[in-house]
Amino acid sequence: MLDQVRNDVAARVQAHLEAEIGRYGGVVAEAMAYASRGGKRLRALFVMEGARLHGVAPDHAIWPAAAIEALHAYSLVHDDLPCMDDDDERRGMPTVHKQWDYATAVLAGDALQTLAFELVTDGRGHPDGAVRADLALTLARAAGAGGMVLGQAMDIAAETADSPLTLAQITALQAGKTGALITWSACAGPLMARDDTGAMKTYGDCVGLAFQIADDVLDVEGDADMVGKAVGKDAAAGKATFVSLLGLDAAKRRAADLVTEACDALSAYGGEAETLRQAARFVIARDS
Amino acid sequence: MLDQVRNDVAARVQAHLEAEIGRYGGVVAEAMAYASRGGKRLRALFVMEGARLHGVAPDHAIWPAAAIEALHAYSLVHDDLPCMDDDDERRGMPTVHKQWDYATAVLAGDALQTLAFELVTDGRGHPDGAVRADLALTLARAAGAGGMVLGQAMDIAAETADSPLTLAQITALQAGKTGALITWSACAGPLMARDDTGAMKTYGDCVGLAFQIADDVLDVEGDADMVGKAVGKDAAAGKATFVSLLGLDAAKRRAADLVTEACDALSAYGGEAETLRQAARFVIARDS
Repeated sequence: MLDQVRNDVAARVQAHLEAEIGRYGGVVAEAMAYASRGGKRLRALFVMEGARLHGVAPDHAIWPAAAIEALHAYSLVHDDLPCMDDDDERRGMPTVHKQWDYATAVLAGDALQTLAFELVTDGRGHPDGAVRADLALTLARAAGAGGMVLGQAMDIAAETADSPLTLAQITALQAGKTGALITWSACAGPLMARDDTGAMKTYGDCVGLAFQIADDVLDVEGDADMVGKAVGKDAAAGKATFVSLLGLDAAKRRAADLVTEACDALSAYGGEAETLRQAARFVIARDS
Repeated sequence: MLDQVRNDVAARVQAHLEAEIGRYGGVVAEAMAYASRGGKRLRALFVMEGARLHGVAPDHAIWPAAAIEALHAYSLVHDDLPCMDDDDERRGMPTVHKQWDYATAVLAGDALQTLAFELVTDGRGHPDGAVRADLALTLARAAGAGGMVLGQAMDIAAETADSPLTLAQITALQAGKTGALITWSACAGPLMARDDTGAMKTYGDCVGLAFQIADDVLDVEGDADMVGKAVGKDAAAGKATFVSLLGLDAAKRRAADLVTEACDALSAYGGEAETLRQAARFVIARDS
């Protein structure tokens, strides 16, 4: 069931982003389209499923769903830049600054962020302007200097810090860097319905943290399987991770507990929330 | 009169941005505050005066006024990056990537853009949520891949093009790079009042283009006065400018005509629009 829903959401988001970016011309628009292809589209799935649970029409929900994927794509393009993580590949393809150049990557990321705010406030989306404004406001708070950018800055600072981060610090870092946007995705549905966001916020918070712990586990186990060494690139770089701080088994248990907590938070939705429960389990069971 | 109003607007915008950025901590927030200090604050002035002419309270107008200055600051921080214009100084101070580093400049610019959308959609601003959403939507259209970013991309492409730009191309480039945000600033007032934006749009379009022509004139005459050479850095770099395409005298006449057109567009406002007329004249009379 999850795969079917995820494929449907992915196809719909892809078509939406292509149509919207297609209104623009030039090399930056090409780079924007390139950077926003592929990915697991989990954030969009959280928006669409949250909307469905709260009776919001898919035609309204697709706008914030596409927006969060545009914003996520912007964050990846800038994170990959030489001055940040300096990555040459993303999703098996050259990163934007390798495929084009540094300036195009900065501009494509900039314009993808702008596009996200254009999409959530477009009048063809949710009919209530106050809802559109709130989507933009909450998205900005999740993405900006108190959310994702703060997490990214903490991550960069940690690389040159004298001592590795503590568990509290790495939890705060990840709550910003990846958690804030995942929680926003989960809350967008009830927000559009003007319903209470409490249950979906708990779900998003737990899934976001579980997602990052699973990433750290993958960094160790993925590498171990593939290249036969006991630890992955984060540990090799002396970087604190949930695995280095908790140990592998405790990290896996913590992620599993968070998934249970995420699923429990959905109890009021009953069987209707089964796709979101499957998505939470997928987050810690994925192999990439 | 203009100086008094401009000083008042500048002080108010400065206080507003400091308070909002002050909610955040860390080095990125410091760089954001640094980058958003100073400047002529003309865009904020256009917002505040346009709002006054349309009966919008200053307490509501200050939000988009601060937002447009945050967005402008973001564009300057990223334009100054080594991969773009590679400038070491801005407003007589080290640019953000010189004062801190490349990554901090990318992140501070990113977060300043986010902040702009946070400010226009904040519920403490205009009481009508639909107005706040429209402010964000129109700002995104002006700033993104069909507006400012497009203009910047055209500017970068022009540097390595085989032939200099034509007058039509350079007009399109500047309409995106600087014009779109100036026009948005002029239109924000009537937009908040749900009034027709026609007159202010003409004003903004004309002032934006006059501003850029004046910049090109300054590049020639400013340099000539200071260092005794006949042409400035743009001409030395073989870059097409309004001056290189039209000639110095014709460029000045064109700018003066645009200012007249801008002032004429305000006729329905009568004497109430005198500050905006002075601002239009200032744009081509300034010495920096």
